[in-house]
Amino acid sequence: MPITTTLVPLRWSDMDAYGHVNNVQYLRLLEEARITAFAQWFGSGSEEMLQGGVIVARQEIEYLRPLVYRLAPVRIDLRVSQIGGASFEVGYEVRDPQDVGDAVYARAETTLAAFDLATERPRRLPQTERDALRTQLEAPVALRGRR
Amino acid sequence: MPITTTLVPLRWSDMDAYGHVNNVQYLRLLEEARITAFAQWFGSGSEEMLQGGVIVARQEIEYLRPLVYRLAPVRIDLRVSQIGGASFEVGYEVRDPQDVGDAVYARAETTLAAFDLATERPRRLPQTERDALRTQLEAPVALRGRR
Amino acid sequence: MPITTTLVPLRWSDMDAYGHVNNVQYLRLLEEARITAFAQWFGSGSEEMLQGGVIVARQEIEYLRPLVYRLAPVRIDLRVSQIGGASFEVGYEVRDPQDVGDAVYARAETTLAAFDLATERPRRLPQTERDALRTQLEAPVALRGRR
Amino acid sequence: MPITTTLVPLRWSDMDAYGHVNNVQYLRLLEEARITAFAQWFGSGSEEMLQGGVIVARQEIEYLRPLVYRLAPVRIDLRVSQIGGASFEVGYEVRDPQDVGDAVYARAETTLAAFDLATERPRRLPQTERDALRTQLEAPVALRGRR
Repeated sequence: MPITTTLVPLRWSDMDAYGHVNNVQYLRLLEEARITAFAQWFGSGSEEMLQGGVIVARQEIEYLRPLVYRLAPVRIDLRVSQIGGASFEVGYEVRDPQDVGDAVYARAETTLAAFDLATERPRRLPQTERDALRTQLEAPVALRGRR
Repeated sequence: MPITTTLVPLRWSDMDAYGHVNNVQYLRLLEEARITAFAQWFGSGSEEMLQGGVIVARQEIEYLRPLVYRLAPVRIDLRVSQIGGASFEVGYEVRDPQDVGDAVYARAETTLAAFDLATERPRRLPQTERDALRTQLEAPVALRGRR
Repeated sequence: MPITTTLVPLRWSDMDAYGHVNNVQYLRLLEEARITAFAQWFGSGSEEMLQGGVIVARQEIEYLRPLVYRLAPVRIDLRVSQIGGASFEVGYEVRDPQDVGDAVYARAETTLAAFDLATERPRRLPQTERDALRTQLEAPVALRGRR
Repeated sequence: MPITTTLVPLRWSDMDAYGHVNNVQYLRLLEEARITAFAQWFGSGSEEMLQGGVIVARQEIEYLRPLVYRLAPVRIDLRVSQIGGASFEVGYEVRDPQDVGDAVYARAETTLAAFDLATERPRRLPQTERDALRTQLEAPVALRGRR
């Protein structure tokens, strides 16, 4: 199955006054995982996309268990769960490599819209990008919380 | 209608390398707005809740237009959109007070779970908290992006 | 005395796992205070400076007492403590407006270098900027920690 | 010479609207490098120190050249530059492992004070900690900017 595994180091400052990795910082970790995955998915083209070829249009995340800082990175698995004419969706699972039973700490989904930062207008996904994304297509992550 | 309006100052550092307020930082702004609203909704009790009486279980956000740093704060409107036995949902709309036409920059929804940080276990919402939340009950914000 | 007083709101997330405003976040607060002061000092010209007319070349900060998040902003007093041909120094004192005895939480100093972001090269301070800075000239803040 | 080398990954979000790693975020990188070095210097004891055995009392940093985000981590070299009865100083040099000529991006120094978070009072450095620090003692980093 086309699941892309990334290892994302935590920072001590990801923890908040509760002593757990802050819920907002989880999305910061997803951002790093996504940049790492893009470099694999789009190769030399990822540079342009990081320069602003895509913007985040929508995000959804569910927190399943508290995470505490440690030196070892967390593992974030990514997949493409939908491809549209001008946008695509990325699904994430945050896991702990050291964990027995492969526990999931959070599940999330991001909708990314193709964008032309120069003109500040949406753009369509060129065929090359669609082809690269199609090789990563996988079932969506199982988000439970939707009403 | 029970809509709670808060003014949240931006920070220059909320902007990322694209020169817009970063999508993750939007959730940081929602966090501040929520703390301000809790002080109004729960009064003297809000202190305990901020100390860990509730944890964020789920978040969903849609970005409608780019936001650029300025000295003037943004306006974030909050409402309670659902009340359960051990959790409740807060809806948000990020607006620009200086904007003609009252444009919306983002809509979001957070599920908050009552939690006992001391025992690290979920707890039920006491009647006093449920009563306080019920006075803020309002229709959910109109999130469009759900599949 | 030409001391510029600014009020900088804290964010709950400025606190770290110790439950105090994190030492690094203090510099984030100074950044916001500096932007607010620049708007007063340089007026219409501050926009260009914020766009990259100056870069931070050096910072020094001393932490005098722990700070805990609250809704009320902290007060940060700024002054210009030195003006060179291509750089100037800003001094800061972080205070608590609610504090009896006007306690100081931190003292800091930043060296700002005039910079041309377009060419990525240093530039000299034009006379207009030097004149604006001279009106703010004040004795340096009393940093004790230097060996 | 007792120099401790650490590799600290950047995050895309470390960059600010100028497209460079933000000057405040440099101190965030130093924080991570320090935690990594403490684990080497204090071994099993580092856990307690991270739990609040030391607080940052003073920081000083000089920025020598702009840094841009990339997937490869930066290298941060640390040394102990002074040991007192209740505090010690750590010196840092931020370098780029990929750089020819071993260019330095920033130099910094932090004064750390032994602290008892439980009682919120300063404490003296026990002999075991002093011994661990003494093995890392090195000449201070060459900070140029002091008046």
